[in-house]
Amino acid sequence: ASNKKLLILPGDGIGPEVMGEVHRVIGWMDKRRAVGFELEEGLVGGAAIDGEGAPVSDATVEKAMAADAVLLGAVGGPKWDDLPFQQKPERGLLRLRKDMALFANLRPALCFDALVEASSLKPEVVSGLDIMIVRELTGGVYFGEPRGIETLPDGTRRGINTQVYTTPEIHRVARVAFDLARKRQNRLCSVEKANVMESGVLWREEVTKLHAAEFSDVELSHMYADNCAMQLVRAPKQFDVIVTDNLFGDMLSDAAAMLTGSLGMLPSASLGDVDASGRRAALYEPVHGSAPDITGQGKANPLATLLSFAMMLRYSFDLGDDADLIEQAVQDVLAAGHRTGDIAVPGAAVVSTAQMGDALLAAL
Amino acid sequence: ASNKKLLILPGDGIGPEVMGEVHRVIGWMDKRRAVGFELEEGLVGGAAIDGEGAPVSDATVEKAMAADAVLLGAVGGPKWDDLPFQQKPERGLLRLRKDMALFANLRPALCFDALVEASSLKPEVVSGLDIMIVRELTGGVYFGEPRGIETLPDGTRRGINTQVYTTPEIHRVARVAFDLARKRQNRLCSVEKANVMESGVLWREEVTKLHAAEFSDVELSHMYADNCAMQLVRAPKQFDVIVTDNLFGDMLSDAAAMLTGSLGMLPSASLGDVDASGRRAALYEPVHGSAPDITGQGKANPLATLLSFAMMLRYSFDLGDDADLIEQAVQDVLAAGHRTGDIAVPGAAVVSTAQMGDALLAAL
Ligand SMILES: CC(C)[C@H](C(=O)O)[C@@H](O)C(=O)O
Ligand SMILES: CC(C)[C@H](C(=O)O)[C@@H](O)C(=O)O
Repeated sequence: ASNKKLLILPGDGIGPEVMGEVHRVIGWMDKRRAVGFELEEGLVGGAAIDGEGAPVSDATVEKAMAADAVLLGAVGGPKWDDLPFQQKPERGLLRLRKDMALFANLRPALCFDALVEASSLKPEVVSGLDIMIVRELTGGVYFGEPRGIETLPDGTRRGINTQVYTTPEIHRVARVAFDLARKRQNRLCSVEKANVMESGVLWREEVTKLHAAEFSDVELSHMYADNCAMQLVRAPKQFDVIVTDNLFGDMLSDAAAMLTGSLGMLPSASLGDVDASGRRAALYEPVHGSAPDITGQGKANPLATLLSFAMMLRYSFDLGDDADLIEQAVQDVLAAGHRTGDIAVPGAAVVSTAQMGDALLAAL
Repeated sequence: ASNKKLLILPGDGIGPEVMGEVHRVIGWMDKRRAVGFELEEGLVGGAAIDGEGAPVSDATVEKAMAADAVLLGAVGGPKWDDLPFQQKPERGLLRLRKDMALFANLRPALCFDALVEASSLKPEVVSGLDIMIVRELTGGVYFGEPRGIETLPDGTRRGINTQVYTTPEIHRVARVAFDLARKRQNRLCSVEKANVMESGVLWREEVTKLHAAEFSDVELSHMYADNCAMQLVRAPKQFDVIVTDNLFGDMLSDAAAMLTGSLGMLPSASLGDVDASGRRAALYEPVHGSAPDITGQGKANPLATLLSFAMMLRYSFDLGDDADLIEQAVQDVLAAGHRTGDIAVPGAAVVSTAQMGDALLAAL
């Protein structure tokens, strides 16, 4: 019996298509690397709404909590856009994050050498770019109470959300970021709006305290979120690791991803705490969305999901060598000129999802 | 006696230096265009902390409310960085915004032809860029209650801020944005996180209602804030007018400003309601900050403040022709190759703040 229980949640849109290529790599690993997984599959997002009546079912949440890792495709699509807030596909993803306590979202923004030209930024600004954004994922305005829409006696409506962070929430995500910085260039930039928000003042104070107490070897700086948005556009290579809250992290990591010009290439990992049995709750997913415009046409780029799978090998199963193999194979297929539509260069041939999978397996 | 009461608040850092060039243009207008102003001057930010014991004094706030327009330089600097939250220079600016009820912040992101190369983005992505971001400025998480840091019985600290919007707050800023769209390309994109925040759901619903009721001739679209951050990097020219809340607007307008590559060139206007006497509360300021690193060296670019002054002529005093003159003169000095350090090209000569002022007056 395997000790690698993997739950696969293909989700919506291009999710199932890109996940198909992961299955092929899993088959290859079993045969060629003697690494076997115990696989389960489930529904999330619109697929779960249609199939099980909720954006994620209790049974799926239970499976996710029991798994050693979860690999997710993407959620959402026009079909479910007009559903009420609590029933939208996104709620499935948000519930998984919260129930699995996945407080640290790791979003590498890496500019692949072969794809420098795909960026809207000048090559010299982004070539060699390698930032790691650590986004807090289970707190802040995403989950804070009170929240909702109320109608006042005079008919005015009021929409409320609450941004809230506690010291332990700040410490645990900052710790992940400091640890990552140590394995990289040893520089951490903490981002908030301490000039405007008290939650940002607390964030800055606590990150500073933790730095002094446990990580004084890491170079720490602080930056306001608006300035960070600017600096990412101006000179992104100044950053090594960035740590920030849920909402700022949502925007900044997307902006950073777009700098690379290849959203279809970027993986992410969402990590929880290590439990008594040494297991760390973890969910991996590509940064790109469900891409309804190209769904079902075999056009999707599977590399972000394959790289998410590689992150899983590294962070959840300590299979760094196998992760290296996959990451190298991705570099190789790019260097060989294989391009799905999203990373195509004018004039060059465009391959399908399955052809990209073929090329990757061949490179492996 | 003039009916143009103008309060000038130079503020900190390079604020006083760039404001010096505005005074020269005011002198020119008096002499050559027979447009006179009744001028007052006051302190704000660190200068007010040092001089009057608070980031803005009650007397200055009163003067601002009595003026027809306020022109502000910049606030903040390392000297005041360690002051407690409530005493920081920024609080002066935030109090002015709130007390003057300046709910609509207009931030044009314009890429000047002569400066296309200064952008970190590829020329084809930004040349001709002309976006107007309308940011809500007196609500949301910047001012919402409850707020603060509390210590729980077990010693845990909790930082709280409240994101709150009411229907009238949404309507009045959206109305400004729709009106602006009509004078431009007639397209408005409303930005929030309605997939995660109820305040965003309300925002989207109310903008949609207002559109149907009063502005159905304007093309309206909706976008999530994270996607907007990406789209600004990927293809900024897709936008005409963007309307968004205080916090998203802070980040998105800064990112948009940086796309143009010339932060030292960008003005802003913050507008309130028109009162019974037909006067609209208004504050104008450059987008750039106080730039402590170059303060007192005569290196600052005065053009953003001069363009803010031009916006003032247009929006507060209905002097569109005079605003045109100044804007054209700015284009002319750029075309003639005059460059302060921030917009310098390698090899070309760099002029001082005063020399840029000279060139502008000559062009006028
Ligand atoms: C789908 C949405 C709820 C989600 C978020 O806002 O966190 C997405 O944008 C992301 O970044 O994973
Ligand atoms: C100085 C600061 C309080 C301010 C803000 O956050 O609004 C600034 O960033 C701005 O955008 O005008």
